[in-house]
Amino acid sequence: MTQPGINRTVRVRQRAAGIPGPEIFELADEPVPLCPPGGVLVRVLLASVDPGMRGWLSAEANYLTVANGFVMRAHGIGEVIESDCAQWQAGDTAFGWLGWQQIAAVAPADLLWPVDLGQAPPALWLSLFGLNGLTAWLGFEHFGRPQAGETVLVSTAAGAVGSVVGQLAAAAGLRAVGLAGGPEKVARASAEFGYHTAIDYRAAGPELRAQIAAACPDGIDIFFDNTAGAIADAVFPALNVAARVVQCGTASVESWLPVPVGPRRERDMLVKRLSWQGFVAFDHEDLFPQAQARLQSLYAAGQLAARDEILEGLDKAPGAIRYLYGGKNNGRLCIRP
Amino acid sequence: MTQPGINRTVRVRQRAAGIPGPEIFELADEPVPLCPPGGVLVRVLLASVDPGMRGWLSAEANYLTVANGFVMRAHGIGEVIESDCAQWQAGDTAFGWLGWQQIAAVAPADLLWPVDLGQAPPALWLSLFGLNGLTAWLGFEHFGRPQAGETVLVSTAAGAVGSVVGQLAAAAGLRAVGLAGGPEKVARASAEFGYHTAIDYRAAGPELRAQIAAACPDGIDIFFDNTAGAIADAVFPALNVAARVVQCGTASVESWLPVPVGPRRERDMLVKRLSWQGFVAFDHEDLFPQAQARLQSLYAAGQLAARDEILEGLDKAPGAIRYLYGGKNNGRLCIRP
Repeated sequence: MTQPGINRTVRVRQRAAGIPGPEIFELADEPVPLCPPGGVLVRVLLASVDPGMRGWLSAEANYLTVANGFVMRAHGIGEVIESDCAQWQAGDTAFGWLGWQQIAAVAPADLLWPVDLGQAPPALWLSLFGLNGLTAWLGFEHFGRPQAGETVLVSTAAGAVGSVVGQLAAAAGLRAVGLAGGPEKVARASAEFGYHTAIDYRAAGPELRAQIAAACPDGIDIFFDNTAGAIADAVFPALNVAARVVQCGTASVESWLPVPVGPRRERDMLVKRLSWQGFVAFDHEDLFPQAQARLQSLYAAGQLAARDEILEGLDKAPGAIRYLYGGKNNGRLCIRP
Repeated sequence: MTQPGINRTVRVRQRAAGIPGPEIFELADEPVPLCPPGGVLVRVLLASVDPGMRGWLSAEANYLTVANGFVMRAHGIGEVIESDCAQWQAGDTAFGWLGWQQIAAVAPADLLWPVDLGQAPPALWLSLFGLNGLTAWLGFEHFGRPQAGETVLVSTAAGAVGSVVGQLAAAAGLRAVGLAGGPEKVARASAEFGYHTAIDYRAAGPELRAQIAAACPDGIDIFFDNTAGAIADAVFPALNVAARVVQCGTASVESWLPVPVGPRRERDMLVKRLSWQGFVAFDHEDLFPQAQARLQSLYAAGQLAARDEILEGLDKAPGAIRYLYGGKNNGRLCIRP
């Protein structure tokens, strides 16, 4: 709940070792900022909690970082309350880099695109039509090069990205097999997210490899990997010749300092002529309009849905990344500040 | 030396564990075969010794295998001595699957393309214009997607494939950095094969990573990997964002049963948005004419050369793969049967 004249913020105090917990953040009530010259003042309606934040907060090199002392970087949906630029007017709603705070004073370029809250509620503009949906589309359609009749396997099938991949795969005529942690997520992957079948990787334990092989009688043509680590090790033996591996996340590996060891991939890469591609959605903004057109058309046709879990209040934010990695959230995690 | 009526052959006796040695082959003097109906009888002028043969002879799954009891599969250059088909006539010379033997009785499809021994000697038709040159072109030009000014690093820079990659890279305006084993090969990589600089990975030992970083001040954009293993581990930290890794061989890893462990690549794949592609030249025959046109035009212009080492007599064949992996050969290894 916002208080007049007060802007509650969550700032980064220090680098995180492993998964960022509350101790690396600082909650503060600060004065509401002024609208910056040439910029925009935005009330944050929803702020995002993403697995990628772990990398932004680590001491290791990453594609993006948030320096100590700064408000935690996050996507959000906001409403413009004051503008000193031509592109945006008070009352406009937008998706952009708003951060973990109640009021964001930003440059026009930080508002990435307008959103229509009449078409879909704010949480969907963070998930389906935000980076989750775009990431799912890029990894599956662009890098996965799917063909009808093929098999795609997705780790974290009930997650914010994986739940979209399953639905895109179903719409494209592929057999989608999901991995998820726990019976609820497994049930949801099949019931809600388009998966033909799903496997509980926690319950499977050392049987995971055999269960994957059984669930993919024709092998795997696309591996959409959000987890890396031991889960990926159980997938590689089932990859077909000419399979595509899309590296979208590494959620199951707690720390990369020092780099953990695992089975070498070189021989599989060669003998199976695999393609393995890492990607970050921000690199492909030129494809976003094409992706959003597809996502919005599937949503309008009733072929695409998303779940969200909204944490109420910024005091939940410092613990939110750890909560997300604990895997107990019930849908796409965001914070109402 | 051939004897009238005798066809000396080298047959496979059993699967190899690790690098195939003489104990898995059997040398035999057999009667010269008849020209098969609809086929061709070919005198083998040169037979090939390739690193890939290790995989063909192992008990593990591979893209190609040679069953026990069969003549060892190998490319070769041969002269047609008798033909029962319209495509080939006595006196024609060709590149094809001739095997480790003196006289090959083959189907027309086993002769892959004609060679012109007036244009280049037989050994060059096995190396530059054979699978080595085609593999180098495919990995570098097709999968590496080189751009002038970029840096390419090649493991086994003085090898049959690596020596061609360096020259293709020099012709395309890239900075080529080679890894080779021993001072002679290092010197040859720079003096003969187009490399701007080369590193002796044996002498470097634990300093290899630092030496690679020093030799690649702008990082590495293409990693043409023939070795895998610890050598590749020293290369990955120097890869640039959006770098391409081309897996052409795994020569430095003696056995893949059980799969050895190494540093996990998933985080590098993601954070650096790497592309990693395994390939086998045979999959891309549609590109061979384009590749050969380029290779022959560079050769005619004096921009492409190759070294070869010819083993005299098939009695050298059973030990030839181990000799190749020992790294003591002085150029592209072949056998004059």
